[in-house]
Amino acid sequence: MQWYLVAALLTGILTTLSQSNGKYKYDYATIPFLAELFKLSFSSFFLWKECQSSSPPRMTKEWRSIRLYLVPSVIYLIHNNVQFATLTYVDPSTYQIMGNLKIVTTGILFRLVLKRKLSNLQWMAVVLLAVGTTTSQVKGCGDAPCDSLFSAPFQGYMLGILSACLSALAGVYTEYLMKKNNDSLYWQNVQLYTFGVIFNMGWLIYGDFKAGFERGPWWQRLFNGYSITTWMVVFNLGSTGLLVSWLMKYSDNIVKVYSTSMAMLLTMVLSVYLFNVRATLQLFLGIVICIISLQMYFMPVNMLVELPQALPVTSK
Amino acid sequence: MQWYLVAALLTGILTTLSQSNGKYKYDYATIPFLAELFKLSFSSFFLWKECQSSSPPRMTKEWRSIRLYLVPSVIYLIHNNVQFATLTYVDPSTYQIMGNLKIVTTGILFRLVLKRKLSNLQWMAVVLLAVGTTTSQVKGCGDAPCDSLFSAPFQGYMLGILSACLSALAGVYTEYLMKKNNDSLYWQNVQLYTFGVIFNMGWLIYGDFKAGFERGPWWQRLFNGYSITTWMVVFNLGSTGLLVSWLMKYSDNIVKVYSTSMAMLLTMVLSVYLFNVRATLQLFLGIVICIISLQMYFMPVNMLVELPQALPVTSK
Repeated sequence: MQWYLVAALLTGILTTLSQSNGKYKYDYATIPFLAELFKLSFSSFFLWKECQSSSPPRMTKEWRSIRLYLVPSVIYLIHNNVQFATLTYVDPSTYQIMGNLKIVTTGILFRLVLKRKLSNLQWMAVVLLAVGTTTSQVKGCGDAPCDSLFSAPFQGYMLGILSACLSALAGVYTEYLMKKNNDSLYWQNVQLYTFGVIFNMGWLIYGDFKAGFERGPWWQRLFNGYSITTWMVVFNLGSTGLLVSWLMKYSDNIVKVYSTSMAMLLTMVLSVYLFNVRATLQLFLGIVICIISLQMYFMPVNMLVELPQALPVTSK
Repeated sequence: MQWYLVAALLTGILTTLSQSNGKYKYDYATIPFLAELFKLSFSSFFLWKECQSSSPPRMTKEWRSIRLYLVPSVIYLIHNNVQFATLTYVDPSTYQIMGNLKIVTTGILFRLVLKRKLSNLQWMAVVLLAVGTTTSQVKGCGDAPCDSLFSAPFQGYMLGILSACLSALAGVYTEYLMKKNNDSLYWQNVQLYTFGVIFNMGWLIYGDFKAGFERGPWWQRLFNGYSITTWMVVFNLGSTGLLVSWLMKYSDNIVKVYSTSMAMLLTMVLSVYLFNVRATLQLFLGIVICIISLQMYFMPVNMLVELPQALPVTSK
């Protein structure tokens, strides 16, 4: 889990570093495709190694099971489109703040789809996590531009909520897939990322089609403007994805949501030192809220409260 | 407790209403004196009625006990001076934000002086309450003037912390006094407010002395510029004080601190409707945080978490 924190931490920093004068010299749409290719290659290699070992891994090969692994890619495709649509109605900072809703929608789908029960205290913790991350993102005195959060069109908010639901659905469904059976993690990854590569390739082709093939086919443009930092972004995005798979199989979506939020806060703190971003009161408050949320969710109950001592043996 | 909420709610609203063009036409220093006088009269009247009744109230009349009731007035005197001194180093909004520290210092002194134990979860709740109220007060995008919270002189922060400690000490000591014995609440109030009137009168005389008696004695100026609203401010301040006494005897400082915070948030919400103040995201976030804090502190444990069922009878 610590590795996921590091990877998520690097994501924000590397993406900022890879910009030149605030612009991307490379085609940003190529990044997810190459990341999926990297994840697929990585998983294929380790699956092959597992097959060479003395105890071959479990692999469910029926098409009936394999076809389920395209569902996350489909959901992400719809989600990306909803994301673009939302950004036509709201500005990026409003979109970022609405993005915190996916913490709550993940908790809700966690309960509804995966049937994992949360205590009332844990529900409060999940809400607090969303509130804490939002607090750290509140635009402070003097931050420009000063767009109002509450004056976007109604459709913008609806699409934002839909985006949060789709994000959560993708995560929860992936966890369902990974935990469905005892197949090798790498075999499950291979299925997942094969569909990921196919869908991303389709997306690049569609982008060419929409541009009327003016810029030539995507595979010719693929590495245009790539620097060392760009490759690090690809590598980092791929690594983050691999770690998420591992979390989905051996941990759960709530742990992932906490890790992502903590990494986001850490990134903001590091930005104060690395990129001279101004430290704000709301960042400090957000950190305190999220740390308390973390303890509320994960701390054993007997460390939180005084438990009643000698309950009768025959109590229900 | 609900009456305290109403009274505290009215305080902010009435004080704003009593201003004319943002200024006070009356001498604000006369308000606390008249409020103490009101509280003393009120308590004396009801004490007299209690003495007339068939079961006379308990009254501890030894000077050794009575003299303790001047301690809160002394602490408030020092606190007011520290408050003035702090405001020479920091601006009013920074002072308001530091004021939330008294929630935490109250909790600490509650534990140290009154020996009331808080579970870890309740400590988190107290911290969250302070964080929640602070969040609601964060200056948003476009709020002028844009003073930095972090650029005040070091002494300003030290004095702010001292102010929070003194506030907490006064509250905790008052609760200690009120719960020390089973004396009539009104008898305790009479002692408390007699010293309050004396100290406030002394403060007004001192104010005259410092001004070189240029404006004439305070009792001549006492009601200058008083309108109906000003009298409502006096009445409201007095009522709030009386309700705090009741809370100190029959409830505790933590309940008072929660009530004050909730009233403050409600005031801000009402200000959106009454005074056209802009609704902000941080106000909404602050309300959510404080409501969760309230539940964390006061909800019975079995409603918060799943308690383990059949513990052995002989467990320690």
